[in-house]
Amino acid sequence: MAVSAPRRRASNGWRPTATLSAIRSALAAASAAFDGSRARYWTARIAALGQRPAGGTHEFQAGTIARNRLQALGYTVRNQWFTLPGESERALVIGGHIDSVPNGGWLDGALNVVAGVEVLRRIAGAGEPPVTVRLVSWADEEGARFGRSLFGSSAASGTMADQEEIRARTDADGIRWEDALREHGVDLDRALEAGKQLSSAAAYLELHIEQGPVLESLGLPLGVVLGTFGVERHQITFRGQAAHAGSTPMDQRRDALAAAAKLALEIRGIAARTGGGAVCTMGSCVTRPGIVTSVVETCTVLLDQRHLDGDKLAAMLAEARDTSERFAREEDVEVEWERVWRIDPILFDETLIELADEAVSEVAGRSHRLPSGPLHDAAEVARAGVPTVMVFVQSLRGLSHTKLEDTKPEHLVLSVQALDRLATKTLDQLAAG
Amino acid sequence: MAVSAPRRRASNGWRPTATLSAIRSALAAASAAFDGSRARYWTARIAALGQRPAGGTHEFQAGTIARNRLQALGYTVRNQWFTLPGESERALVIGGHIDSVPNGGWLDGALNVVAGVEVLRRIAGAGEPPVTVRLVSWADEEGARFGRSLFGSSAASGTMADQEEIRARTDADGIRWEDALREHGVDLDRALEAGKQLSSAAAYLELHIEQGPVLESLGLPLGVVLGTFGVERHQITFRGQAAHAGSTPMDQRRDALAAAAKLALEIRGIAARTGGGAVCTMGSCVTRPGIVTSVVETCTVLLDQRHLDGDKLAAMLAEARDTSERFAREEDVEVEWERVWRIDPILFDETLIELADEAVSEVAGRSHRLPSGPLHDAAEVARAGVPTVMVFVQSLRGLSHTKLEDTKPEHLVLSVQALDRLATKTLDQLAAG
Repeated sequence: MAVSAPRRRASNGWRPTATLSAIRSALAAASAAFDGSRARYWTARIAALGQRPAGGTHEFQAGTIARNRLQALGYTVRNQWFTLPGESERALVIGGHIDSVPNGGWLDGALNVVAGVEVLRRIAGAGEPPVTVRLVSWADEEGARFGRSLFGSSAASGTMADQEEIRARTDADGIRWEDALREHGVDLDRALEAGKQLSSAAAYLELHIEQGPVLESLGLPLGVVLGTFGVERHQITFRGQAAHAGSTPMDQRRDALAAAAKLALEIRGIAARTGGGAVCTMGSCVTRPGIVTSVVETCTVLLDQRHLDGDKLAAMLAEARDTSERFAREEDVEVEWERVWRIDPILFDETLIELADEAVSEVAGRSHRLPSGPLHDAAEVARAGVPTVMVFVQSLRGLSHTKLEDTKPEHLVLSVQALDRLATKTLDQLAAG
Repeated sequence: MAVSAPRRRASNGWRPTATLSAIRSALAAASAAFDGSRARYWTARIAALGQRPAGGTHEFQAGTIARNRLQALGYTVRNQWFTLPGESERALVIGGHIDSVPNGGWLDGALNVVAGVEVLRRIAGAGEPPVTVRLVSWADEEGARFGRSLFGSSAASGTMADQEEIRARTDADGIRWEDALREHGVDLDRALEAGKQLSSAAAYLELHIEQGPVLESLGLPLGVVLGTFGVERHQITFRGQAAHAGSTPMDQRRDALAAAAKLALEIRGIAARTGGGAVCTMGSCVTRPGIVTSVVETCTVLLDQRHLDGDKLAAMLAEARDTSERFAREEDVEVEWERVWRIDPILFDETLIELADEAVSEVAGRSHRLPSGPLHDAAEVARAGVPTVMVFVQSLRGLSHTKLEDTKPEHLVLSVQALDRLATKTLDQLAAG
């Protein structure tokens, strides 16, 4: 996003822009030829620093990494954008994020910033590229402090339309987001100017850990991402009648929990019938009065449904609604739906998906295409109309957003090699097109 | 229970013994012949006084009602026991309770104290009875203040064995139960002396509202109670694996809520297969982490199972356990059971059940036998070995423990008439036996 460089550290250590100074000395000492293992090394160094809240003291100064590594190779630096001018102004962009969730792992986001630096170093060493090459370290992807994710990339994509809502947000200490941003020299009124940064982008590439168990279950190190799921998120309330657990015969109950239980099980059938990677999750169930001596009067559940196909997502939602109403009738209770949040599916670029498939197959022997359940900065870039693709590397046990998050060293090496090959193929494609 | 008479009112209005002074003047003015409608009138007067916490200012002084009505008819008074000596020391006992739950209704408990006074007045007017006749107003049946019910009757039955646990209990204001009792002249160490009161009891009768919908659904005003349900109460915890709602395929989830949902539905089949009025209730379901973006890792539910037959209750429990383990295997989660509370079924006396059936049939044309889901003071008396029976009168919409609690006026009249007939039949039986 188009913001001034960070001026000073906030009292609580939060900064809106990435700071990479902590690995400056390590980077300065690096000299091994590019093979992917250096990326793994630097990512581990980042991990060793511990927590990486957006703007935290352990985030790394983008200006510093550029000054030490990329500037010397011909890259210009502005905020978190590192740019190597090519024969054309059209740009290949690689992006990642350094910030993590509280108690998060070492790879989520940071992997691609470090991998991107390595790829940019290799490209710079090969002479002037046919198109401009850029790396961006997106600000505040996770949104852990202010509860809203994708700050930097949504500013760039222009979807950050609800600035008044952002202005009103406060962190756990009651500090307003706008004030925290100003503390770091970021003017919220000018945040949407970051959109300029994507106006020349011709392709966007992002490498990320999968954060799910699919690749591991298939025995594959790498996969190509088709896009990010559309999401329908609802709160559903079933209302029956509280009644004494001892004196109310089974056939005279209006049990709200029973209707909710039927739905909790039926969403699996809805997902299975829909297919195409559909997922439905009931993540919360709250019962009232919630005592052992009473039939449940009110049961409130949260339902999250996701699909890569917007029509199928809408059909899943309709089926869940219809089914819940049938269950409510069967149990003689009432049911009420309230939407919590929704987002359309975001599809990645077909040509780039093909190129990523080739790159992954060449590096790992076999590729696999899969949707992304979580959102990523890449989704915002794709929404801005930039041809986009992501590569996933296997997450051990599918775990992420926990300190248990991990990936095999050999898979990390393969992932950086695949990103590098994909960058080369994309550059060739852009040069030809 | 064997306690001294109340000395003074506690600062918070709580008293361990019933106080009936508030209806003294109304009783003094009463002169209509006994037909049951007077009982309804006095019960409504009690209701008009509002809340009736145990020992509350709106509870009624047993000594006062005795002085005004029963003492003049030859009854002796000691604490909450009103005694008309008969030809034999063997005693027919009628019992009820005046206290209510917070925001409770007008009939629960109070009906039988007032109905009992009417029956005792009628008996006293007929000359010396063949056996001694007694009315008891049990202390603190509901246990609303200190969380433990049946205080007076469990002291009399001798099941109040855990006096140290009672001593340790405090109310919402932190006042210790023992101190509250002492405030009213009750010495906890002597509470079990109340057992003496039941040593001569030959029969115990209790009229109560049903607090359930069975009689209403059958179109019957009155029913005869077979006994109180045995209860098995357990906390069941299913443990799966938290996983991202977007990135975890449906077939790779270990969803604790799904296993719990299966059990929530299956307990209905267990109750239906068991029959005999079996009830199973899942009254609470708590999910962790309980967020919309995660599969449920831990789901803790409370299961309450009740039956009048101890063997069938044990079989229901075993089936629920086995079934929960099967569901846990199906969902690849773990399950753990922890008993919260249990009580054996308590069966009422077969001869008295026959007499009650006759009395109800004579008064209402048709009788019906049913178990009691809630516990009652009668259960404690039965546990003490005293032949016992209860008569239920219909509760409108099955509601109780709410201000909506109500019973049709004509049904209240029938209920007092039935209690009176039952008392006569029991006296005849005791005289003959």
